[in-house]
Amino acid sequence: MENTRYQRGTDRLNEVDGNTGQNVIDSLETIAPDLGTYIIEFAFGDIYCREGLSLQERELITITSLLTAGGCEPQLAVHINGALNVGISPKKVIEAFIQCIPYTGFPKVLNAVNIAKKVFTERETKEGK
Amino acid sequence: MENTRYQRGTDRLNEVDGNTGQNVIDSLETIAPDLGTYIIEFAFGDIYCREGLSLQERELITITSLLTAGGCEPQLAVHINGALNVGISPKKVIEAFIQCIPYTGFPKVLNAVNIAKKVFTERETKEGK
Amino acid sequence: MENTRYQRGTDRLNEVDGNTGQNVIDSLETIAPDLGTYIIEFAFGDIYCREGLSLQERELITITSLLTAGGCEPQLAVHINGALNVGISPKKVIEAFIQCIPYTGFPKVLNAVNIAKKVFTERETKEGK
Amino acid sequence: MENTRYQRGTDRLNEVDGNTGQNVIDSLETIAPDLGTYIIEFAFGDIYCREGLSLQERELITITSLLTAGGCEPQLAVHINGALNVGISPKKVIEAFIQCIPYTGFPKVLNAVNIAKKVFTERETKEGK
Amino acid sequence: MENTRYQRGTDRLNEVDGNTGQNVIDSLETIAPDLGTYIIEFAFGDIYCREGLSLQERELITITSLLTAGGCEPQLAVHINGALNVGISPKKVIEAFIQCIPYTGFPKVLNAVNIAKKVFTERETKEGK
Amino acid sequence: MENTRYQRGTDRLNEVDGNTGQNVIDSLETIAPDLGTYIIEFAFGDIYCREGLSLQERELITITSLLTAGGCEPQLAVHINGALNVGISPKKVIEAFIQCIPYTGFPKVLNAVNIAKKVFTERETKEGK
Repeated sequence: MENTRYQRGTDRLNEVDGNTGQNVIDSLETIAPDLGTYIIEFAFGDIYCREGLSLQERELITITSLLTAGGCEPQLAVHINGALNVGISPKKVIEAFIQCIPYTGFPKVLNAVNIAKKVFTERETKEGK
Repeated sequence: MENTRYQRGTDRLNEVDGNTGQNVIDSLETIAPDLGTYIIEFAFGDIYCREGLSLQERELITITSLLTAGGCEPQLAVHINGALNVGISPKKVIEAFIQCIPYTGFPKVLNAVNIAKKVFTERETKEGK
Repeated sequence: MENTRYQRGTDRLNEVDGNTGQNVIDSLETIAPDLGTYIIEFAFGDIYCREGLSLQERELITITSLLTAGGCEPQLAVHINGALNVGISPKKVIEAFIQCIPYTGFPKVLNAVNIAKKVFTERETKEGK
Repeated sequence: MENTRYQRGTDRLNEVDGNTGQNVIDSLETIAPDLGTYIIEFAFGDIYCREGLSLQERELITITSLLTAGGCEPQLAVHINGALNVGISPKKVIEAFIQCIPYTGFPKVLNAVNIAKKVFTERETKEGK
Repeated sequence: MENTRYQRGTDRLNEVDGNTGQNVIDSLETIAPDLGTYIIEFAFGDIYCREGLSLQERELITITSLLTAGGCEPQLAVHINGALNVGISPKKVIEAFIQCIPYTGFPKVLNAVNIAKKVFTERETKEGK
Repeated sequence: MENTRYQRGTDRLNEVDGNTGQNVIDSLETIAPDLGTYIIEFAFGDIYCREGLSLQERELITITSLLTAGGCEPQLAVHINGALNVGISPKKVIEAFIQCIPYTGFPKVLNAVNIAKKVFTERETKEGK
């Protein structure tokens, strides 16, 4: 049954985060492979496979939480990609960040918008190829 | 035009947070009335009146940000009420909190669920009257 | 196999946190039972059952993390109890908090010490009975 | 020479925080007396006795830092008292909190204003006697 | 009247942050122009134009809040520049950071001092030209 | 007696953090030398010289606190080195980070593991010479 969690977590991770998510897991291989396993089994196999919220809603929540926590720029980049992958428009990603201003203040929103700018540009460059 | 911001902010505050929001503004009257004005004009008149996200999406983002920040229990109570007021089900509020576990850890989610429990009970008691 | 995770998680939770841990799980029954399940399966069944650190070391890490996060007083109370349950002396709990001063500043350490004071007193009262 | 640090720290603590500061030190006597000693020697004997900032500026900085950290309500109450003790007006305390809105968001400012409200009322009650 | 807020916000932003502030606004032009507008209208047009604190006091508060929040290095660089622009000496900036040690611990103060070091050097280089 | 604190602090700093710690102190020489003095006297002369915890336990606590705070990557690198210097194995450092997942979530643990990866590689490279 563990296999099931791992398998469905991998599927969900690939669906949401695509290559960037898999790169995170791969980068853990030599240093902390169990951490990668828990991300797949628990974060994606358990939590992201639950019912009750759409994948778009889950990604809105995730990018909001990462923006608010601060200092999570690499994970924010992965999940801005994730948000776009599940169909959230770039404009809506920015709108979600603007909604955070009253609750987190401007600096964290500025940091998140700057990450979004990089992600959007990278994706346009790739798609432009 | 400032008047417009204040008026539409008041309307939006009442729509989203209802009495609990107005109570926050009233409690500031003798100590920091300008703070109340900024909440109405900027948070509700500017940000909450923007297009691009539904009110349900805005409240999902707000409760996620407050959960993640930590130490914002009173504001979380106001906005759990707000989430229910704009049509999010209690079950979905809890689901949003569960989505935060991988990003914030269990303790902040436990704190938020405990606040939700109180809010849900208070509302049931009122509705039961 | 899920059953195994749940079973060994329950055993570990009881070993570490005793009644106070079980109370947390029970309090989630009517509001967010899956959150309780994840705490048991993932936090205690997966993480707390790993090798490589003693239970005393795990509890030192947990109370340090909770102190540093701030705003996690209820969870800190549970895990100060946990620390004592696995054989850390009250004096060593305080010493761990003092070690945090240079990294977190005094206020969070003061908050943690005040929680410890309550926990120590409650246990002495119970044991005195 | 240690004695000098302790002595001048005690003097400064009394000058800034008055009774409320001494109460914090006293409350640590049975649980973590060394923590009280470090607060006196390091925070007040070393840092608060430095030149280059007035005591009013030091208290402005302290209450800003405590507001921003969040979850430090007891310490914020002590240092709002401290700010008033060194001659900052209640109005200026509130103004400092309002200056934090763009950087921390509204919730932490609301929490701090609510603590200020309690402190101001307590002092008025005492002075009214 | 909105125009007034925007105009006086721009004036204040230029007065406080100079080029570095305007660069932040410009960098938002293609990605989130409204965010730039809110920074000008609300942070600078509303908050920074209030009475009750000098600009030097406002900048002391801002750099303290950014230091304490952590992870806001770009904004801290802008406002260390702002602090110097409104007449705070480099020595006093460092002294403000040292005052934060007891409340935030050493790591965040070290991060802020390292940013200050870069800002001071950049300004000396420019002035030396 | 101050001299004693400084001397024993320097000894302890060198014992724990080795060159990387001394580099931090040296980097402060021209910008904030007193900050370096306080790190030596208070953090290392006072706190790290206390009894009641082994140096290994102190470093476990320190890296946990730095991971949880977030945004303290440079200090985390210094103290991962410190942990290894006092005899904690690389595997145990990673295990301590994994223990933090339930309390801080995955992103901060990922950040810490990435720092550890760099530190381990640097040390292997040096030792390989």
